[in-house]
Amino acid sequence: MSESQDREIIGGHLLVIGGAEDKYNERRILKKFLSLAGGEKAEVLIVPVASDYPEFAADVYTQAFRNLGVANPRVLRATSRQDVFQADPKELLDGVTGVFITGGDQMRLVSLLGGTNLAAELRKLVRETPLVLAGTSAGAAGMSTSMIVRGEATSHPHKGAVQLSPGLGFLKNLIIDQHFTERGRISRLITAVSYNPYNLGIGIDENTAIILDGKGILEVVGRGSVTIVDGSSISYNEIAEVANHESFSVCGVKMHILRDGLVYQYLERHPLQPQREFLLPDLG
Amino acid sequence: MSESQDREIIGGHLLVIGGAEDKYNERRILKKFLSLAGGEKAEVLIVPVASDYPEFAADVYTQAFRNLGVANPRVLRATSRQDVFQADPKELLDGVTGVFITGGDQMRLVSLLGGTNLAAELRKLVRETPLVLAGTSAGAAGMSTSMIVRGEATSHPHKGAVQLSPGLGFLKNLIIDQHFTERGRISRLITAVSYNPYNLGIGIDENTAIILDGKGILEVVGRGSVTIVDGSSISYNEIAEVANHESFSVCGVKMHILRDGLVYQYLERHPLQPQREFLLPDLG
Repeated sequence: MSESQDREIIGGHLLVIGGAEDKYNERRILKKFLSLAGGEKAEVLIVPVASDYPEFAADVYTQAFRNLGVANPRVLRATSRQDVFQADPKELLDGVTGVFITGGDQMRLVSLLGGTNLAAELRKLVRETPLVLAGTSAGAAGMSTSMIVRGEATSHPHKGAVQLSPGLGFLKNLIIDQHFTERGRISRLITAVSYNPYNLGIGIDENTAIILDGKGILEVVGRGSVTIVDGSSISYNEIAEVANHESFSVCGVKMHILRDGLVYQYLERHPLQPQREFLLPDLG
Repeated sequence: MSESQDREIIGGHLLVIGGAEDKYNERRILKKFLSLAGGEKAEVLIVPVASDYPEFAADVYTQAFRNLGVANPRVLRATSRQDVFQADPKELLDGVTGVFITGGDQMRLVSLLGGTNLAAELRKLVRETPLVLAGTSAGAAGMSTSMIVRGEATSHPHKGAVQLSPGLGFLKNLIIDQHFTERGRISRLITAVSYNPYNLGIGIDENTAIILDGKGILEVVGRGSVTIVDGSSISYNEIAEVANHESFSVCGVKMHILRDGLVYQYLERHPLQPQREFLLPDLG
């Protein structure tokens, strides 16, 4: 496990959301984002570049955050790398306490932002300041160094079941999958982990999120489950032996299904038992 | 793990098929059944009682076995418990070397056969003789003491995700699920195992089967995968704590995905490494 113990450096928190988080009713996840970003004093930047309709995505989240008391959320308005190059990262991020990356297409997100000064500045702020960085759906998938860009649902794990590509690198030893049980993605996440069991697989359901801190603690918040696929005990892995679309065998995958409130140590790779309060029995 | 080591007593073999086995082309699974049942000398009994259309199911398998050289497959013709009571088990099973239970509804299968002399005689033959007992789909689900009768696909594991009922009891410490990755059933199998981790969960894909012998060896044959869900290392299990349709957390589930040719020790619960032949490199 030593390889998996590379220290993630997070100064504040990452909030990684499985997509379709509630924006109109209870809004637990968006509220959590704002509370981590400083509550009423939160300065929010919306990054809608993954979306096919970035103006629309920006409007939706602008309104959602306004409804929760944020006066003037900023928006990164960019539909090309040129637009991103022209934005001044220091100015755009000055005073910002929370960045929210919307859904859409993670390939668009990464191909627009990857290698720009803005992405570099954002990585620096994530490491060195208490900034909260949130991403939902494609914005979640793109957070790690290895990102799932395409994959099949509900099939056998097979060698071509999933395609990985470099992500934005805010997280290093994780692979995030989203809309997880809703789209039956367990096979593709097991496949992704089998490619290189160094990566911990994390499948996040809709309206569900994980909050990660720099101490290696991850907490689940929301309605669905978070599925952890830990390949560090894989004892037999056939993925290198088979042809591209052939199914493969893999033995010894460890799995945890965690719901709201549960906590996992993602650097040391073990769940933390919930603290139970043992009350004295009521003896009447 | 001591609890899981109850000895299964199998004199011959069980062949448990995930449904939709090929009947017209390569027919690997049906051929395997016949070869285990004595090849050209196989005496086959078809049990189509799970089916909505038992005559049709009987015809399909009669023809399939005839095409493979079995002269006169017998058929259990029964649509009620009365019909089953009227069959003489000794006569029906006299000289039979292979019994094949078709698909349909496992509840119908078990409610018709359960507690009859025929089921008792069949269990006796499975234990004491080299008989091969095969079941596909519902016929596979019904083989164990605990059987999945209803369940939801591709949802979070939640407490009500699956309903168990007593099966025919040819196998004791297993829960079989079928049409497994095709119908996205991993959540319901994890739920079933979480009810009582004593049971080993085995999810079998279509046109795929496991062959079990009395020594605890299980071998995969066919096109898809077999997913083993081993709950013996579950360290945290919330299923008793939550309301009926609430999702629950479960930590420490061990999983193996096995394809054609792989072998698993189902009594001691560990995969057996395939024997690789290390050839000397060709030095030209």
